[in-house]
Amino acid sequence: LQSKLPNIGATIFTTMSQLAQEHGAINLSQGFPDFGCAPELLDLANQAMQNGYNQYAPSSGLPLLRQQISKKTEQLYGYTANADTQITVTSGATEALFAAISAVVRPGDEVIILEPSYDSYVPAIDLNGGVPVFVPLTFPEFAIDWQKVKDKLSSKTRLLILNSPHNPSGAILTPSDLQFLKELTQEHPFLIISDEVYEHMVFDGKKHLSLLTEPELAERAFVISSFGKTFHTTGWKVGYCIAPPALTTEFRKIHQYLTFCTATPFQQAIGQYLENPEPYLTLPQFYQQKRDLFAELLKPSKFELIPCAGTYFQLARYNQISDLPEVEFAQWLTKEAGVAVIPVSVFYHDQTDHRLVRFCFAKKEETLQAAAERLCKL
Amino acid sequence: LQSKLPNIGATIFTTMSQLAQEHGAINLSQGFPDFGCAPELLDLANQAMQNGYNQYAPSSGLPLLRQQISKKTEQLYGYTANADTQITVTSGATEALFAAISAVVRPGDEVIILEPSYDSYVPAIDLNGGVPVFVPLTFPEFAIDWQKVKDKLSSKTRLLILNSPHNPSGAILTPSDLQFLKELTQEHPFLIISDEVYEHMVFDGKKHLSLLTEPELAERAFVISSFGKTFHTTGWKVGYCIAPPALTTEFRKIHQYLTFCTATPFQQAIGQYLENPEPYLTLPQFYQQKRDLFAELLKPSKFELIPCAGTYFQLARYNQISDLPEVEFAQWLTKEAGVAVIPVSVFYHDQTDHRLVRFCFAKKEETLQAAAERLCKL
Ligand SMILES: CSCCC(=O)C(=O)O
Ligand SMILES: CSCCC(=O)C(=O)O
Repeated sequence: LQSKLPNIGATIFTTMSQLAQEHGAINLSQGFPDFGCAPELLDLANQAMQNGYNQYAPSSGLPLLRQQISKKTEQLYGYTANADTQITVTSGATEALFAAISAVVRPGDEVIILEPSYDSYVPAIDLNGGVPVFVPLTFPEFAIDWQKVKDKLSSKTRLLILNSPHNPSGAILTPSDLQFLKELTQEHPFLIISDEVYEHMVFDGKKHLSLLTEPELAERAFVISSFGKTFHTTGWKVGYCIAPPALTTEFRKIHQYLTFCTATPFQQAIGQYLENPEPYLTLPQFYQQKRDLFAELLKPSKFELIPCAGTYFQLARYNQISDLPEVEFAQWLTKEAGVAVIPVSVFYHDQTDHRLVRFCFAKKEETLQAAAERLCKL
Repeated sequence: LQSKLPNIGATIFTTMSQLAQEHGAINLSQGFPDFGCAPELLDLANQAMQNGYNQYAPSSGLPLLRQQISKKTEQLYGYTANADTQITVTSGATEALFAAISAVVRPGDEVIILEPSYDSYVPAIDLNGGVPVFVPLTFPEFAIDWQKVKDKLSSKTRLLILNSPHNPSGAILTPSDLQFLKELTQEHPFLIISDEVYEHMVFDGKKHLSLLTEPELAERAFVISSFGKTFHTTGWKVGYCIAPPALTTEFRKIHQYLTFCTATPFQQAIGQYLENPEPYLTLPQFYQQKRDLFAELLKPSKFELIPCAGTYFQLARYNQISDLPEVEFAQWLTKEAGVAVIPVSVFYHDQTDHRLVRFCFAKKEETLQAAAERLCKL
């Protein structure tokens, strides 16, 4: 059997979480909280099951959940997404990304990827016969060099994938980014996927700049988010995609054959839970505190932190500790220092190695403390 | 935007369930039970949530669930599937089908499809650039004409998709089918997807013939099933794929970028619930009773039933009632008679029309009675 993804193994998240387990390391690699979600949310899920929400949801998602997503989007970004024709519930953002890419990328189509980039984009493009065209973010700011993007645009450019707040760097889009992007789209008719799964984790009083805030961009974009990160339920796999009706039609054609629909009790529970905006409105301060605590705890260490404006990830340079390349350093750190991290080079097609690792700080205080204690010894 | 699936609209299940709702019809179209699952299973799911099973599961599935699937498979089919290297948990059988097709079908590869066929196979093949090659099942037995299959084999044949118990016909594979298939695979090196989601619904004392019962077939097959049908939880979306290690490796590469993993609390609950085999061992008698009741209730009607050996679907000819083609008849039946059904012609690429409709009998007695009352008036 000839592999269709010959250069792909298990994802870095699977690999590092397994390694963490084998060595009893504190797992700051794969992004997920080590604390529970709100008890009210569990109660709502249990009630949904007791009330019989255990059969297929409509393929596009439960109407209640789509309406609540529409309401939230309107309140936060001033964009009115029609729940019937523009919002589709998916099995996590991962499925939404795969469906959006599959809906529009044909053999030979070029897709602009800003690196470092989340690991699922390129395989999805490959499987659809597309051609990823890589543009590096600046280092160490992880900002978009729009001239470089412009230089890569061609008649074959079909899609640009954006991700803000950005995993793994924590950088966020600025108003001038959206301005540059608008100008580019006036010259070139490419579509956009905007991966906004960390939309509710932007710090220091800044605001998340959703692509939906710009009608000219929203009209050509799949905007993708998820509740796993926002409500501390990464294992519930409820994500969604907002797109104009014509794009949604194509998106849903694919989605209905990828998974058909997503766990009904969790759709119902989240639909009800969204009635109260407080949980996501207070998330920035919740995670900012963790970010700040982790930075404080690492002050005595030799790690040099890259400023983090959003997400629950903290990048750190380790060149005062080791000369090892990132992948080897991450393995060493897991096995020898007992803290599992993600090497950032895996997010570059050419393994660009800035001697950086990614820590996930979506952890209890005691976890962050225990990890920092180990890290400060290095 | 040029559609990648230009001939595809919403699935027939979405279309008919919506029509049923609009017209207040009894919905015997889309296959799902209108009764609840076991309260113990709901309790297990609630406990799983309370116990913190709310973050990502391993991409391949929770070890407990994979081990239980392995045990069940060994006990029922005498096949030992290694839980680590051969079993992958998916977001329903739908995702498993898409992942298996995507793992092996390349542009130009031919895939043999026995018609009528489940609606997701062909779009998945199309999206991967494959070429579906259609072979009709015999009518009205819905048996496989192996000579016809053999005639379609070519050097490009990559895959054969089987489905037993068969949706929509209710026909099941026989020992001689497996014998013929073994002979064919000795001459041609194609792979097999065996869609066995109705494995626990085989009636009249017959046994489900899993492809796993034949080692020579298992070694080239993706065997796909799901717990939604078996445990009356179609909305939980927990399915799985059993395949040899080399195929599983490729399958998992795709799966990890389609959905990454599947709702953790339900994996944990089903893993525990599988400890007791009784629920699935008693399922045949549970559904046989419904099949027989529905047949009995329809005796005074002008519908002529096709024998049903498995699944929760009953086909019926209606030519004594109407001259309409199936799609029109199904719409008429929904709107005018108040019973929604699935036209079988949608499962043929050329809309072969045998004047047949499909009823789902996974319904409470009172639902079947109410539907039959309406149907007997025609
Ligand atoms: C789907 S597992 C990966 C979780 C994640 O988004 C990350 O760690 O970057
Ligand atoms: C995924 S909705 C379709 C359910 C089903 O398998 C059927 O009705 O045939």
